[in-house]
Amino acid sequence: MAAAKIDFWFTMGSTYSFLSVMRLAELQQSTGVTFQWRPFHLLVILQEMNHVPFADKPAKLAYMWRDIERRASVQGIAARLPAPYPVKSSIRANLVATVGMREGWGPDFVRAAYRRWFQLGQEAGSEPNLSGSLRDIGQDEARVLALADSEDAMAALVAETDAARALGIFGSPTFTVDREVFWGDDRLEDAINWRRSHSIKPN
Amino acid sequence: MAAAKIDFWFTMGSTYSFLSVMRLAELQQSTGVTFQWRPFHLLVILQEMNHVPFADKPAKLAYMWRDIERRASVQGIAARLPAPYPVKSSIRANLVATVGMREGWGPDFVRAAYRRWFQLGQEAGSEPNLSGSLRDIGQDEARVLALADSEDAMAALVAETDAARALGIFGSPTFTVDREVFWGDDRLEDAINWRRSHSIKPN
Repeated sequence: MAAAKIDFWFTMGSTYSFLSVMRLAELQQSTGVTFQWRPFHLLVILQEMNHVPFADKPAKLAYMWRDIERRASVQGIAARLPAPYPVKSSIRANLVATVGMREGWGPDFVRAAYRRWFQLGQEAGSEPNLSGSLRDIGQDEARVLALADSEDAMAALVAETDAARALGIFGSPTFTVDREVFWGDDRLEDAINWRRSHSIKPN
Repeated sequence: MAAAKIDFWFTMGSTYSFLSVMRLAELQQSTGVTFQWRPFHLLVILQEMNHVPFADKPAKLAYMWRDIERRASVQGIAARLPAPYPVKSSIRANLVATVGMREGWGPDFVRAAYRRWFQLGQEAGSEPNLSGSLRDIGQDEARVLALADSEDAMAALVAETDAARALGIFGSPTFTVDREVFWGDDRLEDAINWRRSHSIKPN
């Protein structure tokens, strides 16, 4: 039988993804569900939809920060808000995350980058966040950035973005259980309950 | 000491508000918190923001129906989805609701209208939903529609819409505890917890 698995789709310019990034490791331990971290480039899908979630909507943006602040507080996650937003170069961070997922240190990098973004005020995808996050997790900056800038990494990120679009994904974080889609950190528990109550398909 | 009260802001073209409308009475009983129902005309605020939440975004719209279906199912609320959307004349339903709140039968009307919309497929704000919902709750259709079409009702609805905007409200349903804003049926429990853990201001 296949292991109980949930796909965790995220893009590194996403603010609400912070909440999921910071609690997935603990949830994996407490629930026994495995999360597969899948970075994708949401910005392309948002542009296709002609959709700007927050940045051009002041009331919604102000609410977003307050909502994240309250939820981080309830979850015991430290945060200094508002963090820089919107980020100028989420693609760079998504490419590094893509390399990291292949090499096994991806979740550590993503956590380090979100810590720097949401706790130190260093914008994700730009310096000093990129190099600093790689240093934090003991990865060689020059080697990793060369891989992130390769056509190979870009092709992998495009393929994952295509896979996200094909599932109907339009936001980050999104959790999928087979083809069932759950959008938002506030649907994470629903995704886990769904995974538990629906039979695992044999490989 | 003032009673524990949460303001429930809603507009009758809103799909997610269905979930809150159908469970507030029970929650009021089980929690002891009083909900003050406050219809407002969200469409004006959305137009000011240049924001269309779902209707022009097919992937987000498809997800919305699936999400509402799952949540209604968990909450034990019957629904035949998708319901007609977007509605052509939410203002008419909001005006009737405004009259109803003044006269005391507002919540009954709103529940009847959502039942017809989400269970019988009758679009909110249009016929036969409007007249049928008034009949369902024993109100005289001619009398109420005349009041709903009065300048008085329109002024009251505009005033409530202004009050919503001033609080930073940009969606429906929204719950407010004093000036603390909780957006979405999925923040209803957070609003109740907030109400319970923050002291009531004396009148």
